[in-house]
Amino acid sequence: MVRLKLTIAYIGTNFFGWQKQRDKRTVQQCIEEVISKICEQKIIVYGASRTDSGVHALGQVAHCNIPENKAHIPWIRALNYLLPEDISIVKVEKVKNHFDARYSAKAKIYSYTIWRNWEYVLPQRRPFVWKSGEVDEDLMEKAANIFIGTHDFASFQNTGTEVKSTIRTIFDIRREKGIHEEETRWIFIGNGFLKQMIRNIMGALVAIGKKKITLEELKNIFQERDRRLAPATAPASGLCLERVIYDEDY
Amino acid sequence: MVRLKLTIAYIGTNFFGWQKQRDKRTVQQCIEEVISKICEQKIIVYGASRTDSGVHALGQVAHCNIPENKAHIPWIRALNYLLPEDISIVKVEKVKNHFDARYSAKAKIYSYTIWRNWEYVLPQRRPFVWKSGEVDEDLMEKAANIFIGTHDFASFQNTGTEVKSTIRTIFDIRREKGIHEEETRWIFIGNGFLKQMIRNIMGALVAIGKKKITLEELKNIFQERDRRLAPATAPASGLCLERVIYDEDY
Repeated sequence: MVRLKLTIAYIGTNFFGWQKQRDKRTVQQCIEEVISKICEQKIIVYGASRTDSGVHALGQVAHCNIPENKAHIPWIRALNYLLPEDISIVKVEKVKNHFDARYSAKAKIYSYTIWRNWEYVLPQRRPFVWKSGEVDEDLMEKAANIFIGTHDFASFQNTGTEVKSTIRTIFDIRREKGIHEEETRWIFIGNGFLKQMIRNIMGALVAIGKKKITLEELKNIFQERDRRLAPATAPASGLCLERVIYDEDY
Repeated sequence: MVRLKLTIAYIGTNFFGWQKQRDKRTVQQCIEEVISKICEQKIIVYGASRTDSGVHALGQVAHCNIPENKAHIPWIRALNYLLPEDISIVKVEKVKNHFDARYSAKAKIYSYTIWRNWEYVLPQRRPFVWKSGEVDEDLMEKAANIFIGTHDFASFQNTGTEVKSTIRTIFDIRREKGIHEEETRWIFIGNGFLKQMIRNIMGALVAIGKKKITLEELKNIFQERDRRLAPATAPASGLCLERVIYDEDY
């Protein structure tokens, strides 16, 4: 048995997210099918992050075990030849057996891209942005600082999610120029994120940027730990899993 | 009558190019339908460049005449509301009546993007690049210089095209970094291009970069003015009409 680490890019638009679900097209399902076909046996692929329906990835990471006699095939070419056009394998590495895509992850980096011009969006960029319209980005940056650090993010998780703890650490949120002059990228670095947490934070930041809520109101929502008080969730299209960080040498 | 200048972006993948053709989905057709609907009469839209099937645009330009009583509607919003997702109007300007998108154009800027990694292409970039594999870009740059200036480009037009003259001027061909580290953008600036001329030049440059032909052989092809001797045409996916330049104040 050999363990492979896969680095994966996908356009999330036509997937019901990463995780396998009965009768739905998911990224995990597509990759498992292809690897199982090559290995002539059922192979399970474990992802670092269960990205939601519509969320994109440039650097999702997954691991799987393959039989010894399949270790020497040119994996990256074989996979990319068989996978559909909206998934690519960017890298394949042989790793030690205690590497786990999910549990060995030290940090995850996501980007969220907003498009500020209300009159048009480039069709080339439409699937990858949220057309928010004009926003006060300095105010948004100030608000973003509230979230940095270790906090209870209960009011920024999706309603109805069951998790042991809603405490997470955000190491940084920073603003960057996007590919196009009408775009801004918000980079989120954290040790893990609750379901729809980034999209809920972005929804709140844009509400701040559009002056629909004040910084004081946002602080209250954060403290109340009740999702129902928070602004609407930002759309999946703007979100992209950029990279998963592992600090040990596997 | 008021003349409008439209700046247009589109993803060329699902169009049979710019120009109207019976029973084919074209960009001109889509835009004329929408403008005609708004104006409640048949409006013709004249484009600066007849981009081929599959070729993209960020800055195509077109003009059309609309009735006076339609001059005050918010054109950009109305058009973008009605147009399909793969076309956007980036700008609408009222111009003088002697402005002509095609005949007033002083120069056109195209980009051609190649993807150098043979093992994968990001799905997000796949529709906009040519996956050429490894190429010697310094050699390509040297070869590109052959084309700069005023030349007879007969061996770099599509076979079977009828034009008065095959002489064109290329002001510059330059190499730029792309959005992604595996990409290179080749920028073409000229006073006009023959049918598939840039794709034919790119096909030749990549043949040089892969050492399938020598610089001497390329020079011979250029002098022979016979398309049949030239390397294969580069795919439409890598080509994008970036901008049309007008030097007069309309």
